[in-house]
Amino acid sequence: MTTTGVTRVLAGFAVDRVSVPELALEAGRRTMLNAIALAVGAARHAAVEAALTVLHQLGSPPLAAVLGRGDRLAPQWAALVNGIGVHVEDFDDTHLPTVIHPGPVVVPAALAVADWLDRTGEDVLLATVIGTEIALRIGMGLGDSHFDRGWHVTGISGPLGAAAAAGRLLRLDETAMANALGLAATQAAGLQESLGYMTKSLQPAKAAANGVEAALLAAEGFTSSPTAIEGRRGLGALVSAAADYARMLADLGRTWEIELNAFKPYACGIVSHPAIDAAITLRRRVKDVGDIAEVVVTVNPVVLDVMGKIEPSTGLQSKFSVYHSVAVGLVDGAAGPPQFSDARALAPDIVALRRKVRAITDASIAKDEARMRLRTATGDVHEVHIKHATGSAAQPMTEAGLRAKAERLAEPVLGRRTAAFIEAAWRVDRLPSARELISAATSA
Amino acid sequence: MTTTGVTRVLAGFAVDRVSVPELALEAGRRTMLNAIALAVGAARHAAVEAALTVLHQLGSPPLAAVLGRGDRLAPQWAALVNGIGVHVEDFDDTHLPTVIHPGPVVVPAALAVADWLDRTGEDVLLATVIGTEIALRIGMGLGDSHFDRGWHVTGISGPLGAAAAAGRLLRLDETAMANALGLAATQAAGLQESLGYMTKSLQPAKAAANGVEAALLAAEGFTSSPTAIEGRRGLGALVSAAADYARMLADLGRTWEIELNAFKPYACGIVSHPAIDAAITLRRRVKDVGDIAEVVVTVNPVVLDVMGKIEPSTGLQSKFSVYHSVAVGLVDGAAGPPQFSDARALAPDIVALRRKVRAITDASIAKDEARMRLRTATGDVHEVHIKHATGSAAQPMTEAGLRAKAERLAEPVLGRRTAAFIEAAWRVDRLPSARELISAATSA
Repeated sequence: MTTTGVTRVLAGFAVDRVSVPELALEAGRRTMLNAIALAVGAARHAAVEAALTVLHQLGSPPLAAVLGRGDRLAPQWAALVNGIGVHVEDFDDTHLPTVIHPGPVVVPAALAVADWLDRTGEDVLLATVIGTEIALRIGMGLGDSHFDRGWHVTGISGPLGAAAAAGRLLRLDETAMANALGLAATQAAGLQESLGYMTKSLQPAKAAANGVEAALLAAEGFTSSPTAIEGRRGLGALVSAAADYARMLADLGRTWEIELNAFKPYACGIVSHPAIDAAITLRRRVKDVGDIAEVVVTVNPVVLDVMGKIEPSTGLQSKFSVYHSVAVGLVDGAAGPPQFSDARALAPDIVALRRKVRAITDASIAKDEARMRLRTATGDVHEVHIKHATGSAAQPMTEAGLRAKAERLAEPVLGRRTAAFIEAAWRVDRLPSARELISAATSA
Repeated sequence: MTTTGVTRVLAGFAVDRVSVPELALEAGRRTMLNAIALAVGAARHAAVEAALTVLHQLGSPPLAAVLGRGDRLAPQWAALVNGIGVHVEDFDDTHLPTVIHPGPVVVPAALAVADWLDRTGEDVLLATVIGTEIALRIGMGLGDSHFDRGWHVTGISGPLGAAAAAGRLLRLDETAMANALGLAATQAAGLQESLGYMTKSLQPAKAAANGVEAALLAAEGFTSSPTAIEGRRGLGALVSAAADYARMLADLGRTWEIELNAFKPYACGIVSHPAIDAAITLRRRVKDVGDIAEVVVTVNPVVLDVMGKIEPSTGLQSKFSVYHSVAVGLVDGAAGPPQFSDARALAPDIVALRRKVRAITDASIAKDEARMRLRTATGDVHEVHIKHATGSAAQPMTEAGLRAKAERLAEPVLGRRTAAFIEAAWRVDRLPSARELISAATSA
């Protein structure tokens, strides 16, 4: 079903003097804090270092900051490196209805352009909220068939969100914004086959960089199809079996998808989070995890579809293993970045325990639900039923939880400047310059 | 049907000390000459200027040349701008079985890296031949269903070809090359909805730039899925209804798809070329084109599918109008870039004549075939049957024809240096440095 002018309507919304309700703004601030803290925390990750080595080898104009470091790059490249940093630990955020991760796409794009052009804090927050809204609405309209085919929905919808955010900061008019969205749509890409490799983080990162570039090209008069999203050979027709354009536009500017953006408590695929909650809960009831004979976890079928790696050999692969996730939950009582390192993926205690984990799928179990039954060598049995995972819509991360997560991520890099960074993020829209937040999140 | 290890086999081929037969090398030289001449000719095109304005606004390290100009940019960015230049006039090349345009993707990627790293002429020719072969074989395996869905097949297969070419020049080992192909596969993108807009040229151009970047990242240890092409959620499964991986690998290194790369005589969608041949033929039989009352052209159904724009309002749109193509053929006796300018798209004589053109589709007419029946106001009737269009497999462009095309394109930019450029291209593999060819194709 085609709705005339989807691309143009979204472009109009993106450049509009729209009135954003406080709940959506608050979701935007949280999205920014969470994303920036992640990039700061991952500033020395091997994937970030590899990308920076490439870009420094070429030389780059020092226009926009790499978070958590002192490096500056061209805005597309800063967006690229920061996007890798936000996403590489799979610890970022998830719009639950679509499984889109807006944080690693829209935030790096908005920050890079705002840094370069010295926009206000309010500008960057509004760009983040509106760019995110565009990406999420496109994802809603593409629907589940799109995800089920194997597209990485963040890479598909992401370029349009990043282009909208960057284009708004560049103050594009409606025609140029429509061109920017078209330039972004034709760069929609990303395979779920990449799960478990550095490439996965490149997908949102390139969405960010390509969105920035699309907006810059559109500002210089580069043209694209005015029906790039809804045309017969447009984005919707190509990546979805049932694109619903009316859904993309429903209540635009009145309801805000960004309010459903959830923040991850664990650094791995979100669908295993209820199983991790179960593991951490049962850990308290078992005296010695060395005594565990068997763990049976019952989960929604999507879990094995996405998280079915039985013997992950790297940290990145272990993020897509429900077996590994349960094992670290039981042994460490935690599932942060340290639990998904290369070393932990190969650690004998974890390998031994994850081989004792059996996963059963049950379509009557919700995606945020899990049951776990644990048996020890001495015959003790412990059971738990997680109704709603930490970080789910029914059990969202609290402000205090998000603050604690940001502190844990940023503190090893920013040290005593961590508190100032977090305060700047909470009041971003009152900062006269976005650079105040950005410089608070870079190392001296 | 899955063939184990397609990604790895192609990576092995890409890094191999493969023996390339002279016919394939000759096809490579022609592909290079044609592509470089096009970029030189389009060096001042609005799309090229827009991209350069963006990149110069940011500043760029001067590492690789923009063809037909004096500018130098980072290698990804040089590949981007040159890719736009090669493709923007839709005058480049076409691998007839897949409709892939390898020239605007693989040549800019190979040249940018060879320029930056100062590789030999033989290095850059081999990189072009092998990168092209990878792209074309992926296109063969994806099959027609892929094109029919609406993907721009050049944007889908292109990043892998560019990554192979760039990776070979970077001397990646097999593992790194497999990672480069995976990084490229996950960036496969491009909508046919972009036909008629500058965005269309961005699709091969970004394929070139993303391929270069993928190779650079892989060289620094960036990892990707070893089954990016053939995996359950890999490229083939996502963009094709019937991916044939055995076809991708059949006779690899023994038969060479690049030998089927054809060069365009007219600056528009290739499927209208037989209709243009017919128009130019009938023009000689009509005293005054102002007397034409009606033109009926019978073509393969794909023509209206791709070239059905009835009232194009820009030069880029007119390249996808069989009506416009026939009209300029009749009025100008030519169909080069000048016939597809914004001015010509709106010229009253052309607009009046193209409204007299009727296109009839007939599935029994081959893609390189057309029949035309022209009636004058005084009742004269002229007919012609083009069995095989100029530039088709049965009627390929001759060496002299290609040389004349290159001269016409390059001369306005390079002036008296044109002959030296063409000679350098014909003997590229004997040049001690690829820079000799590149500097011959840049303005002082």
